[in-house]
Amino acid sequence: MKIQVLRLSHRFDRDTRITTHVCLTARAFGAEKVYFSGDKETSIIDSVEDVVKRWGGDFQIEYTKNHIKIIKEWKNKGGEVIHLTMYGEQANEIVNEIKKSNKDKLIVVGGSKVEIDVYEKADWNVSITTQPHSEVSSLAIFQHLLTDGNEFNLKFDGAKLQVSPMAKGKRLNVKK
Amino acid sequence: MKIQVLRLSHRFDRDTRITTHVCLTARAFGAEKVYFSGDKETSIIDSVEDVVKRWGGDFQIEYTKNHIKIIKEWKNKGGEVIHLTMYGEQANEIVNEIKKSNKDKLIVVGGSKVEIDVYEKADWNVSITTQPHSEVSSLAIFQHLLTDGNEFNLKFDGAKLQVSPMAKGKRLNVKK
Repeated sequence: MKIQVLRLSHRFDRDTRITTHVCLTARAFGAEKVYFSGDKETSIIDSVEDVVKRWGGDFQIEYTKNHIKIIKEWKNKGGEVIHLTMYGEQANEIVNEIKKSNKDKLIVVGGSKVEIDVYEKADWNVSITTQPHSEVSSLAIFQHLLTDGNEFNLKFDGAKLQVSPMAKGKRLNVKK
Repeated sequence: MKIQVLRLSHRFDRDTRITTHVCLTARAFGAEKVYFSGDKETSIIDSVEDVVKRWGGDFQIEYTKNHIKIIKEWKNKGGEVIHLTMYGEQANEIVNEIKKSNKDKLIVVGGSKVEIDVYEKADWNVSITTQPHSEVSSLAIFQHLLTDGNEFNLKFDGAKLQVSPMAKGKRLNVKK
């Protein structure tokens, strides 16, 4: 099962760090690619690609003008779409149903205003708690639930930087 | 077991939305209070208090000039301190040890540069994956693990706004 993430309607400057954190969370929790729509802020692409270069793996980031097209193409290729929204069904109740099929998953996380078309095209609209918090925390929890906590087992090939976990202090291994 | 969160070294403007998302995540996942240090950006206090007023519960937010003092006082009162850092021990390996005691927990999430004193005063330095991602996702996953996913069962008293989970569409109940 392939996991990709679609971040809707990025806004220049205002969303820069949140969108970057969405991308890095997607990668750290095992997605292979993120698309973002809205404002084409290329510095986000640069900073995510810089993380990939240093921390390994082959995570990709791509800007799209048309996020509905990405959703349609995903479904046409037989993949499933999960839209994370505070209005959706509770993740803990629905995740086992979502895990039943091994089809590729596109996880959609909202921007400021999400058009009704996204709710309708999604196979599932899923909520993490129905309380307001963050697309970053929602994405992390959903990927965690979808993969049974597999984020702790991932390996990132070709990493130049790698942390050795420690009870106190910092150990960062640097490969040349 | 009481859970509170301490957000270190907030920076005016640059961190506004990330710190706000940290606060809202803390609340949605069952913390009762958040402290933040660094720049005293009062608009964050206003926007978090506005969410509490509308969405219920009695979550509190407080600015502190001295985060080391908060950590010391917490420990003096018999509480335990968990510092979330990518350099720490992996959460999945250490969380059962942390859950053994029912002592109150202060979860510390970093800012730009965290002084070594925080690593040393913490009872545990804990990492979510040892990859770079976000203090928002780290906090959500750690609270999820610490409370066995209890975020999905929380009730927020006195809420004016409440979502009814739906497969398609939005239903927001408004109490007057």
